[in-house]
Amino acid sequence: MSTELVVPPLAELRRRRSVKWRAFPDDVLPLFVAEMDYELAPPVAEVLREAVTRGDLGYHAPGPDLGKAFAGFAGRRWGWDPDPALVAPVTDVGVGVVEVLRQLVRHGEPVVISPPVYPPFFDWVPEAGGRVLEVPLAEGRLDLPALEAAFATHPAAYVLCNPQNPVGRVHTADELAELARLATLYRVPIISDEIHAALVLPGATFTPMLTVPGAAAVTIAVVSASKAFNLAGLKCAALVTAAPAMTRVVEGLVVEVSERTGHLGALASIAAYTDGDPWLESLIGTLAARREQLGSLLATELPSLRWRPPEATYLAWLDASVLGRDAQPRERFLYEGKVALEPGPRFGAAGSGYVRLNYATSPEILAEAVSRMAAVLG
Amino acid sequence: MSTELVVPPLAELRRRRSVKWRAFPDDVLPLFVAEMDYELAPPVAEVLREAVTRGDLGYHAPGPDLGKAFAGFAGRRWGWDPDPALVAPVTDVGVGVVEVLRQLVRHGEPVVISPPVYPPFFDWVPEAGGRVLEVPLAEGRLDLPALEAAFATHPAAYVLCNPQNPVGRVHTADELAELARLATLYRVPIISDEIHAALVLPGATFTPMLTVPGAAAVTIAVVSASKAFNLAGLKCAALVTAAPAMTRVVEGLVVEVSERTGHLGALASIAAYTDGDPWLESLIGTLAARREQLGSLLATELPSLRWRPPEATYLAWLDASVLGRDAQPRERFLYEGKVALEPGPRFGAAGSGYVRLNYATSPEILAEAVSRMAAVLG
Repeated sequence: MSTELVVPPLAELRRRRSVKWRAFPDDVLPLFVAEMDYELAPPVAEVLREAVTRGDLGYHAPGPDLGKAFAGFAGRRWGWDPDPALVAPVTDVGVGVVEVLRQLVRHGEPVVISPPVYPPFFDWVPEAGGRVLEVPLAEGRLDLPALEAAFATHPAAYVLCNPQNPVGRVHTADELAELARLATLYRVPIISDEIHAALVLPGATFTPMLTVPGAAAVTIAVVSASKAFNLAGLKCAALVTAAPAMTRVVEGLVVEVSERTGHLGALASIAAYTDGDPWLESLIGTLAARREQLGSLLATELPSLRWRPPEATYLAWLDASVLGRDAQPRERFLYEGKVALEPGPRFGAAGSGYVRLNYATSPEILAEAVSRMAAVLG
Repeated sequence: MSTELVVPPLAELRRRRSVKWRAFPDDVLPLFVAEMDYELAPPVAEVLREAVTRGDLGYHAPGPDLGKAFAGFAGRRWGWDPDPALVAPVTDVGVGVVEVLRQLVRHGEPVVISPPVYPPFFDWVPEAGGRVLEVPLAEGRLDLPALEAAFATHPAAYVLCNPQNPVGRVHTADELAELARLATLYRVPIISDEIHAALVLPGATFTPMLTVPGAAAVTIAVVSASKAFNLAGLKCAALVTAAPAMTRVVEGLVVEVSERTGHLGALASIAAYTDGDPWLESLIGTLAARREQLGSLLATELPSLRWRPPEATYLAWLDASVLGRDAQPRERFLYEGKVALEPGPRFGAAGSGYVRLNYATSPEILAEAVSRMAAVLG
């Protein structure tokens, strides 16, 4: 039994200074970047207030607390029992992926990703010296035969997105087992971005890659409390391993990589992992209600848009190609409808004609956004 | 007229969770890492409390606010008028230096630094693919003839530390002008780490490198409010340039580099730069009083230690070689005296027999620390 989370009034939201509320003028409803509009989880707010009151804003302290808190959370949520000592903090998921890629990739080597996928994936690979090799999703799922063909060419790594952003797919245990088999067979390390793992909605089951039989020897997971607890600006994520070969990769990073972790990010993550379950249950219930509301709104007001309701995340991947190709739907929704969405092409060529809509907001704002979008279609 | 800043009681300080207060057991007085024990500047605490109350912890928003705030601060403090549009946020000073070095250095090329210097300088260079070329300070000052000899070999860059950590030296305008002349003559880009710039104490004058005639064409400055306002854990610094060639280096960074800036770090920095002057004046007065107190304590209780009072920073570089070479003084002060200091060798070979002491604390804690250190000498 959970009650829905509260969204502050729009005038209050507009006083936020994060990118969601500063990128567009006030006549635009911002449903683009993946930030949520809910109030903070009380244990998170409390630990942050305490830190400010104590002047406790110095350097992140290494230590067992973050690993222990994550391990407890992973055990309760997914029956996963990671070794707390193998939870290594980093600035954010992107930094974690890039730093690991730097260890794995020699200059110009291919790194496989599966678009449509979170836009920075396309940047992280060349930032680390690699070259993107795309193996697109097939009908929103991992294309395992195509991945096998790519792995057979011996790429330096595969960067998995699970749950998948933007399509909201939760890869199944069977799919991940086959992925692990292929990665082992062809010796392709997997970097598993699991930032949305705690945002799996009713109806789907999340499988941490490191719990998949055979996967640990080839997998480095990247986890964070930042997405489920809305802490992106606090700068804390972690690399998790379970086998010596992968742990050695993480241990090869310079010590400064962990020192660049945000201190408040670590404190907030520990509080979230330790005491955030009740709030998270309310969040899941709230997001499930918004997903259902969005389905109804689309069916009645925007029937020409096609979508597959996401199994996880608070992001809806909408085929709006009725409005045009490439980024045209996003442009029309923004300039005619005053609703800011993510343009599909940012997620890869397969995103042509798509938009990504963030529904982690109030029923009223969501309804208003769909109403404005419907008006664009006339 | 400023009153001294308040230090919370030791029992309160020990509830902080930053590295200063978590690295050692409670019987040790921690005077090692560069965090301060004072309460936060009120405008900083206020903006952070507001952000927590608003749930405003999302992604750092690009925009003019940080650049404008820094430019205002630089103008008031140093008569420096940087272009706000050329103030580019990054995660922290280390990330800023490394990212710039990645643009400037081809694999294995030498990068000059002047030890004794902040330990991560030795790591940043190889992290970016370079090789450290040491041109040590001479009597605590830049060794300009030796730098000319090194620059004549065409290193990829020089990383300047001004004010200099750990010796506390504020390089003079004349020294910096000669450095700029050499850098121009031999085409050696200068990365100027100015993180301690706002902590110049009475008696010295800080010269921003970008205000030195001829320096802009070869200089990228790295600035941060983190040291003067004790915000290291919030993850915000900035790269500042003033000439197209150097600006192009910063513009060559992937967009994610700025997106990795801490949101609360940016908010706190803006508040500090905009409204932090009165608190900063009190801080400077407080640190000047502690520096004087430390001088008296050393003279009476530890006359066998030699030092040159720092012109800036809250760090004292103490020649404790009477206790042994290498890290022996640090070990003896820690294990026999229960005072944690930074071991001199971390700052380079010239640090053998030295310790670095952080005096940004209360008169009582400082007196107790020196008393414990004196007891070690017997």
